[in-house]
Amino acid sequence: MNTSTRLRGVFSPVTTPFAADLGPDAPRLVRHCRWLLSQDVGLAVFGTNSEANSMSVGEKKALLDALIEAGVPGHRMMPGTGACALTDSVELTRHAVRHGAGGVLMLPPFYYKGVSDDGLFASYAEVIERVADPRLRIYLYHIPQVSNVPISLALIARLLKAYPGVIAGIKDSSGDWENTKAMLERFQPEGFDVFAGSESFLLANMRGGGVGCITATGNVNPGAISRLYGTWQEPDADAQQKALDAVRGIFQRFPMIPALKAALAHYSGDAGYAAVRPPLVALSPQQHTELLAALQAHGFSMPGWDGGR
Amino acid sequence: MNTSTRLRGVFSPVTTPFAADLGPDAPRLVRHCRWLLSQDVGLAVFGTNSEANSMSVGEKKALLDALIEAGVPGHRMMPGTGACALTDSVELTRHAVRHGAGGVLMLPPFYYKGVSDDGLFASYAEVIERVADPRLRIYLYHIPQVSNVPISLALIARLLKAYPGVIAGIKDSSGDWENTKAMLERFQPEGFDVFAGSESFLLANMRGGGVGCITATGNVNPGAISRLYGTWQEPDADAQQKALDAVRGIFQRFPMIPALKAALAHYSGDAGYAAVRPPLVALSPQQHTELLAALQAHGFSMPGWDGGR
Repeated sequence: MNTSTRLRGVFSPVTTPFAADLGPDAPRLVRHCRWLLSQDVGLAVFGTNSEANSMSVGEKKALLDALIEAGVPGHRMMPGTGACALTDSVELTRHAVRHGAGGVLMLPPFYYKGVSDDGLFASYAEVIERVADPRLRIYLYHIPQVSNVPISLALIARLLKAYPGVIAGIKDSSGDWENTKAMLERFQPEGFDVFAGSESFLLANMRGGGVGCITATGNVNPGAISRLYGTWQEPDADAQQKALDAVRGIFQRFPMIPALKAALAHYSGDAGYAAVRPPLVALSPQQHTELLAALQAHGFSMPGWDGGR
Repeated sequence: MNTSTRLRGVFSPVTTPFAADLGPDAPRLVRHCRWLLSQDVGLAVFGTNSEANSMSVGEKKALLDALIEAGVPGHRMMPGTGACALTDSVELTRHAVRHGAGGVLMLPPFYYKGVSDDGLFASYAEVIERVADPRLRIYLYHIPQVSNVPISLALIARLLKAYPGVIAGIKDSSGDWENTKAMLERFQPEGFDVFAGSESFLLANMRGGGVGCITATGNVNPGAISRLYGTWQEPDADAQQKALDAVRGIFQRFPMIPALKAALAHYSGDAGYAAVRPPLVALSPQQHTELLAALQAHGFSMPGWDGGR
C-alpha cells in the first residue's frame, strides 16, 4: 500500500458560514478554507463543528462543487460523509471521491442506538462496495459522546482485515486517551492512521506514533497548532502544547461552534461569519462580550485572517 | 379550531420492506398498509420502527408517491418527517402536506446534543414558516432514549402559544408515564393530542383523556389493539390490555424491528418482508426459531394477513 499520499498533519472541521436565509454561504467558506490552507491546516469540511448534520446531502455536494471550482485542492480535504441513511452516505462519499478528496471522515449511522458490530460492519461495507472506487480512503469517526454509536476496537480490526488500504485511519474524539493509545499500539503499525480528536492530545498522539489531529479550534488558531505538529520533536514542544491548551480552554468555556464563529466574525470584521443554523443558537450578547474579553486578555490574535476580503 | 378532522386512534410506524438490493420495496409496503387500514390502524409511515432514518429524503418521497398512487388515503397517514438537517425536514414535510397527510410526526434535529429549547423552538419554527401551508399539523416526537434530544414541557408550551392549531399533539415514547400524564393534564385540554408511544399505555392514556397510541407492535397485532381503542370504556378493557401486553412482551424479548419483520414474513409466507437495512441486522436463526415458537405457544395469529397476495 502506498502511504506516501496519505493525509497527515492538522485538519480543521471548517465551520460553515450561513447567509441571512440560513443557506450555506460558499464564498465565505472558500475564503476561510484559503486562510486555513495558508496556515498549513487541512480541510475536514462537513465535520461536527461544521454543522454538517444540519445540512442536506444536496447542500453539502453544492458546497464541495464550489470549493473545487474555486481552486481549493481536493487532496487537502477530508470531507465528513457519514449519515444516518446508507444511501446518503454513499451519495456524498462518491461525490467527495470524484472530486479527489484525500479521504473521507465517516460517522457510523447514528440514529439507531445499541446496534451491533455486525450491523456497523455491514454499513461501512455497503458504502465501500457501492462507491467501488480504488481512490476511496475512509477515516472512521469515533465520537461517542455525540453520535452515541461508538466504534469498537473489534470493529476496526474486522474492517481493516476486510478492506485494507480503504480503511485508512480514525479520528478519535472520545477524549479518552487510553482508547487513543490502544488504537496507536494495535493498529497504527498496520498503517491505520490515528488522528487525535483535538490539539489537546496532539503532542501525546505524535509521541505515540499518530499522524496529527483534527480539531475545532483549528478554525481560529491554525498557525500555532500546525507549528506544534511540525516541531513536536523540538525542546519547546511541551511549552507549545501548554499554550495551545490555554487558547482552547477559553473557547471551551462557551458553546464551541457559536464561539468559533463569533471569533471568526470579530477578527475578520465580517459579521457574516457568525450565523449558526438551528438547532444551534448564537452566543448571547453577554457570552459574546466575555469571549472577546477573555481572548483579548490572553493576547489572542488571528494572524492573516481578514475574512478573505 | 376544528378538531373533527384530527387524527385519533391506533397508528403503526409501518415497517419498510426492502428488496434484495436494499432499496425500499413500495409494492410490499402498499400491501402491508392496506392490511393495517383493514384493521383500523392508521399509518405512521417513516417512524423509528420503519427504519426511516436509514433512508434518504428522496427514497421517502418516492415511497409516499407510491402509496398515494396506489390509493392509500393521505388523511390516514402521519409520516415521520423530522431530520437532522433543517432543509431535509422542510422538504419531506412539504411533500407530505401536499399529499394530504393528516399530520406529520416530527423528530427534533437529533445529531447535536445538549441543545437549548431556544434552538429546538427555532428548528420547529423554521420548518413551519418555510412549509407555510395551513394544512400542516405537527405531532412532536418525544423519544429521548433514541434521539437523545428530549422535548420538554416548556418547549411544548412555547410552540403551542406561537403556532396554535399547527402544533397538534405529541407521541410520547419516553415510557415514562408521569411525563405522559403531565402532558395530558397540561396540554390535552388545549386541544394538544397526546398519543401514547405504545399500546402498553393505551388504556391509561385513554382514561387520562388522550387520543390513542402509535405503536411498533401495531404492525403485527393491529386488530386487537384497535379493538381496545374502540372499546376502552367496556368492562373487559383491563383484560384486553393484559392480552396486548402479553403479545408485546414476546416481541420485546428480541430486537424489535427484525422481530416484527420476521413475523410479517412468516405469517404471510413471503420472506420478502424480513429484510432490514444496515445498521440493523436480521434475527439470528436461533432468535427466529425462538420468536416463532413463543408466538405459536401463545396462540398468536395475524388474521387476514397474507402479505396482500
